Amino acid sequence: MSTATRDRLVVAVAELMRTHGYSAITVKQITAAAQAPMGSLYHHFPHGKVQIAAEALRSSGAAYIQLLPLLMDPHPDLRVAVPAAFDDAARTMAESGWINMCPVGTVAGEIADSEPELRAVAAEVVADWIDQGTAYFVRRGLNTADARDLVLGLLSSLEGAFVLARTMRSAEPLHAAGRAVGARIDALLAARDHAAG
Amino acid sequence: MSTATRDRLVVAVAELMRTHGYSAITVKQITAAAQAPMGSLYHHFPHGKVQIAAEALRSSGAAYIQLLPLLMDPHPDLRVAVPAAFDDAARTMAESGWINMCPVGTVAGEIADSEPELRAVAAEVVADWIDQGTAYFVRRGLNTADARDLVLGLLSSLEGAFVLARTMRSAEPLHAAGRAVGARIDALLAARDHAAG
Repeated sequence: MSTATRDRLVVAVAELMRTHGYSAITVKQITAAAQAPMGSLYHHFPHGKVQIAAEALRSSGAAYIQLLPLLMDPHPDLRVAVPAAFDDAARTMAESGWINMCPVGTVAGEIADSEPELRAVAAEVVADWIDQGTAYFVRRGLNTADARDLVLGLLSSLEGAFVLARTMRSAEPLHAAGRAVGARIDALLAARDHAAG
Repeated sequence: MSTATRDRLVVAVAELMRTHGYSAITVKQITAAAQAPMGSLYHHFPHGKVQIAAEALRSSGAAYIQLLPLLMDPHPDLRVAVPAAFDDAARTMAESGWINMCPVGTVAGEIADSEPELRAVAAEVVADWIDQGTAYFVRRGLNTADARDLVLGLLSSLEGAFVLARTMRSAEPLHAAGRAVGARIDALLAARDHAAG
């Protein structure tokens, strides 16, 4: 029962959740997708589907927040970086046939009232996004309160725009959401620069 | 097989989707929640769960967009109305124990890649939101392009903030999202008033 099998199982669940959500997937589908025997799933994850889904949410969430510096670092001006990141996400989605960019968001929405254990894991993942996003925007020159406010607005807009874009099969919500969060960064930077005199 | 039974079935599905999503619910749960015989479901909805869920998405969606004028009309200044609507939604969620405010959004996110028939229905619902929202902001003084852009940004932020708020059990994402969309309306109105001289 190797670590490689364990990793394959987690990747399989993350990918299945991306297209099917949490409730629709079965332990049988997971082991088939991972080309692993059923016993290996319960060996590595004695609590079964909920435990492996929790681990998949954690690993998807950790990968997702790494996109923030990746998408924004190329742009020295945050006023440009924020809408550009939304436009890049829109391009990726359109080119991929409207892939689900964030299974954490859709699974969290699906299970928030029905799977308390997974909801708690999703909450940890989101708290980590907020901490890492706040630290990123502080490095880019915002104070901590503004940085946290911005990252909460950004994550809300991005998560909602992902769902609308997949539903509509259109990039339009992402471009509009990018302009909204862009307006917020404009306002925060103008207030900061005004206060600095 | 009365219209009352049909209505009870649709309401039962809408309420079950609010807490469980789409995949987790069964036809048996639906008829039990509606206190209706199993036969009545297939009498009114020959295609079963997917057909009744489609109707529930349409009726939930129609109710949801009526909140827009309800929440915004009391505020003569749109710059105040937009963040106030997000703050009102936050209060409702906190008071209700973080109820799912928009099953259309969460179900759309769950099934966009796995249930093409329901995805198409959700897309119709969202298109209707955008049309009605655009018409609303045109009545409040925006041109059509700005109104559409604003409503897309608003719906994205609201849908994403609902998911984050339910996950975190916190109103913070809704307040931050309201400030982001508020900044966008500020910018759109400033540009309009500047163009008008």
